[in-house]
Amino acid sequence: MFRTLKRILIGAPLHSEYLVREKLPKWKALAIFSSDALSSVAYGPEQIIIVLMAAGTFLYGYAGPIALAILALLAVVAISYAQVARANPGGGGSYSVARNNLGETVALLAAASLFIDYTLTVAVSISSGTDAIVSAFPLLIPYHIAIDLGVLFGVLMLINLRGVRESSTVFVFPTYSFIIGIIIMIGIGLYLVFTGRQPAIPAASLQFAWSGPALFVILRAFASGCSSMTGVEAISNGVPMFKPPEVSNARKTTFIMALVLGVMFGGIAFLILHYHFLPQPNQTMLSQLAGSVLGHSWGYYYIQITTMLILYLAANTSYNGLPPLLSLLARDGYMPRYLAARGDRLVFSSGIVLLSVVSAVFIIAFQGSTDHLIALYALGVFISFTIAQTGMVIHWRREKGTGWHFRALINTIGAVTTAVVVVIIAITKFIYGAWLVAILIPLLIATFKTIHQHYLNMREQLRLPRESYGGGSWKQAPGRNLVLVPIAGVNRVVENTLTYAKMISPHVTALYVGAEEAGIQEIREKWQRWKTDIELIVRYSPYRTILEPVVDYVDQMRRERQPGDFITVLIPEFETRKWWHRLLHNQTGWFLRTYFIFHQDVVVSVVPFRLQK
Amino acid sequence: MFRTLKRILIGAPLHSEYLVREKLPKWKALAIFSSDALSSVAYGPEQIIIVLMAAGTFLYGYAGPIALAILALLAVVAISYAQVARANPGGGGSYSVARNNLGETVALLAAASLFIDYTLTVAVSISSGTDAIVSAFPLLIPYHIAIDLGVLFGVLMLINLRGVRESSTVFVFPTYSFIIGIIIMIGIGLYLVFTGRQPAIPAASLQFAWSGPALFVILRAFASGCSSMTGVEAISNGVPMFKPPEVSNARKTTFIMALVLGVMFGGIAFLILHYHFLPQPNQTMLSQLAGSVLGHSWGYYYIQITTMLILYLAANTSYNGLPPLLSLLARDGYMPRYLAARGDRLVFSSGIVLLSVVSAVFIIAFQGSTDHLIALYALGVFISFTIAQTGMVIHWRREKGTGWHFRALINTIGAVTTAVVVVIIAITKFIYGAWLVAILIPLLIATFKTIHQHYLNMREQLRLPRESYGGGSWKQAPGRNLVLVPIAGVNRVVENTLTYAKMISPHVTALYVGAEEAGIQEIREKWQRWKTDIELIVRYSPYRTILEPVVDYVDQMRRERQPGDFITVLIPEFETRKWWHRLLHNQTGWFLRTYFIFHQDVVVSVVPFRLQK
Repeated sequence: MFRTLKRILIGAPLHSEYLVREKLPKWKALAIFSSDALSSVAYGPEQIIIVLMAAGTFLYGYAGPIALAILALLAVVAISYAQVARANPGGGGSYSVARNNLGETVALLAAASLFIDYTLTVAVSISSGTDAIVSAFPLLIPYHIAIDLGVLFGVLMLINLRGVRESSTVFVFPTYSFIIGIIIMIGIGLYLVFTGRQPAIPAASLQFAWSGPALFVILRAFASGCSSMTGVEAISNGVPMFKPPEVSNARKTTFIMALVLGVMFGGIAFLILHYHFLPQPNQTMLSQLAGSVLGHSWGYYYIQITTMLILYLAANTSYNGLPPLLSLLARDGYMPRYLAARGDRLVFSSGIVLLSVVSAVFIIAFQGSTDHLIALYALGVFISFTIAQTGMVIHWRREKGTGWHFRALINTIGAVTTAVVVVIIAITKFIYGAWLVAILIPLLIATFKTIHQHYLNMREQLRLPRESYGGGSWKQAPGRNLVLVPIAGVNRVVENTLTYAKMISPHVTALYVGAEEAGIQEIREKWQRWKTDIELIVRYSPYRTILEPVVDYVDQMRRERQPGDFITVLIPEFETRKWWHRLLHNQTGWFLRTYFIFHQDVVVSVVPFRLQK
Repeated sequence: MFRTLKRILIGAPLHSEYLVREKLPKWKALAIFSSDALSSVAYGPEQIIIVLMAAGTFLYGYAGPIALAILALLAVVAISYAQVARANPGGGGSYSVARNNLGETVALLAAASLFIDYTLTVAVSISSGTDAIVSAFPLLIPYHIAIDLGVLFGVLMLINLRGVRESSTVFVFPTYSFIIGIIIMIGIGLYLVFTGRQPAIPAASLQFAWSGPALFVILRAFASGCSSMTGVEAISNGVPMFKPPEVSNARKTTFIMALVLGVMFGGIAFLILHYHFLPQPNQTMLSQLAGSVLGHSWGYYYIQITTMLILYLAANTSYNGLPPLLSLLARDGYMPRYLAARGDRLVFSSGIVLLSVVSAVFIIAFQGSTDHLIALYALGVFISFTIAQTGMVIHWRREKGTGWHFRALINTIGAVTTAVVVVIIAITKFIYGAWLVAILIPLLIATFKTIHQHYLNMREQLRLPRESYGGGSWKQAPGRNLVLVPIAGVNRVVENTLTYAKMISPHVTALYVGAEEAGIQEIREKWQRWKTDIELIVRYSPYRTILEPVVDYVDQMRRERQPGDFITVLIPEFETRKWWHRLLHNQTGWFLRTYFIFHQDVVVSVVPFRLQK
């Protein structure tokens, strides 16, 4: 039943040989990797204005310069990241860069930052996508979180568990539809601006609150706007998923993406500022802009729906980014090993599920509010930007290939710029949510290190000593196998178990625990008449429990055993033909089995006896 | 943790020797066994009038004669049941009587009827007890079902799991308080009647609906009134719980109970009818009566609270009746054996839990409505009355002791009378709920018989053949032990497991399942260098699952084995020192273990290897 459902939802398992074919051409890779960056134009410009407006309209004029600063930053980051793709064809982005160039702790700092940012990308993009659709259809306002979670688990998680190639085909169309729609809208908007026509601007009521000195507010607006930049690194983390030549294709795609992002961000920011839009609850600024420029025509709904789709697709970017990163971490022993294993459909299933669950926690904790989630966002991204760029500088200095001075200079500029942004974000957004990230990052790093230590310890303990393994001589250790068979009577189940016991060891003891004197006497007599050569131990249990006397006896055996001895507890069990027959029998066997498997270093054997009727 | 909580709620385990002391003196037994019968005066008279009133006020006058008929029936049943106690000192009531005198099917009919009635007693008494308190405190009306379930699980079940003696001490006080209160109220009421004073009668608005011919309605009113009689049999079912001389004490207690019940039922019915009370929603008639006679003084609250307490106590009667009955059924093989076992506190814990759960189902299904539950009630009781009395007639005829003619005559009258009542209840209440009982009783009987057949089948299959058991010669069966060790690498865990494997059998095979060619090649080389004499089988798993290739290989072993051969699957497992370490390892071992324990007739052995760090 479960298996059938799984087949329907996830698809039939894929043969390992299929793996090599799971590669993406440029135009598909652009759709998959760039949606995060591109979609952020849906909330990025708005976040700048929301922060500025909280202090009052007098700062509105700073929005333009802030937008320009962000565009400049985008150029720096994009150029820097094209270098990362060149130097790290294995993928993994800033984690790989740091691991190769900056050492373990910095690499883990990058990994922790990326982990938080990938999960926040899912949370922010989904809640923002739902904002877009809720803006167009206000009836849906009360179902915001339900829609978020439905999209997260019902669509994204399932599609990704099915496998990456299918997801790319599903998702290519909306990205291009969105780009085309937004660019046409910007074109119409600019035409209206330059022909001097003024569209209808919705009124807005604002509440102002003092929120710090003007410079602080301006920097915070810049920090919030930087959320538009998340996702630029996605391509360099996914280099191995490109068709060959991977590096060249990845670099080209990075530049195309940065260009498209710059045009859309700049255009939207210009129009919003030109028309003096103000933030409104339950209505995004992009929705206001589209409604004003295009009227409430089908064009408006086209923009809203493609915006929603590309935002959900942006969430999908994390599914292409985090599971491979987790698999790298798992391979290096910083996360549970099974995160490195590909599932039925050749994707990293455990990582996909983990990402979905953590993102859901963020969405629920922040009640699906994009504004509140944005406060946590971007810090992690810029930390990993800085680490990646710094790593690259060291990489070029070490390699000293053609033109390394120039390359190192580009990355130095990138590293310094992004480091400054990290400081700005950390300071201005600290009380608004960055403190949570500041707690989570060290916590994650500590977790990675603890897991790593556990694997190291285990490896050491499991390694065979040199003489037995390398020396090529298997030595059978001496020792006895002391077998205990708890019995509840004299019958064929017990006979079967004792037959097995005698087959595996000459040291067999049977143990009967009785709550009544009469039963004990009866079993003694039966045993004597049976004339086995097996010793029967009898224990009286005045409190009518079976488990404790058996455990006590096993403890005694453990105290008396010699080095090399194994203790085996054989549990006689009969298999009933119908499931409900199980309910008719007491579960002592199950209790004994479970107890000994979990509590003591004894071998637990379940010896079945199948009932025919 | 769970164990500590259990100790606090249930108490420390009791030694088996303590059992003999768990006996009740008469005055305590009266409180425990009679509360069911006595408490029914809280709803019995009311049920007569509700049924009559549904047809219109013109039938009100029949209430008096119906009440008298019920009193007469009570006398017959009480006298008959005193005989049952005499003949069945072992307890078990009509089930025991029928089993000894009328054969299996009738005994099971009695058991099924009793089962339904005990559970309904709990449901009716609890919901009626809550009615009493809700009548006095209307604020509680919306919490009716929550109160019901709280009392059921939080009070009754826990107290009974603690043990019967403690419950008797807890519950003696309310029974006597109730009896005294009701009798004083009746006295004051009668005084008012004979001094001609008229208390204030609350107004009532009634809705009439045609509900059949007058005779039918009258008989149905009688049938509903018969619900007052449930519980009269409780004493004869609990004979072994009396202090010696058990039979004499039980008979005396039966008569005392019948007398008290008659006085209270008669008095309440007389006053209600004299003052012409009418049914009201959320206000019981006893509450109306107490309010009118005593005013809304502390006396009124005393009556309501003691009524509530005795009704909850009546529910408790079933806890003294059903678990021992279930244990008799379990001992005879009609119910799961473990219902016959006494728990930590020497009570039949499983039966107590079962009763609580089934009663909760009734309460929830009928939304805690006493009126609706009453429709199902009484049919089962009167069926078991009839069976018990018929069984007694046969018993006396067989025994032919002193005065057997007279004794048989009494029970014949009892049997005929109660049989007539069964027919009346079945016909008049069929569409109102008795149909459900008519379905449940055959279903229960079929269940009893199916369980019995299973135990018979099993016993036959488990019994050792005469020659090996009685003949006194244990024969070790021939056969090999074919051992399979699934391995995931070459390390100390595997070394440990293989050492054990070689200890228990010369036929050991190791199986490695690999998803990658490289891994397979590596393991082959390591194995060769290791130079064990154990054969290594390697399977390539293109779909990356481990379980299926192992299962396939075991299937192959099963097909190739010879009679008498055992197949053992050894699962290497390492025990981690901290619980969360478990999360860091894949659960393949657990999957293999669980699969083979549930699916195949192979021995499953878990060989632990303890990690030190």
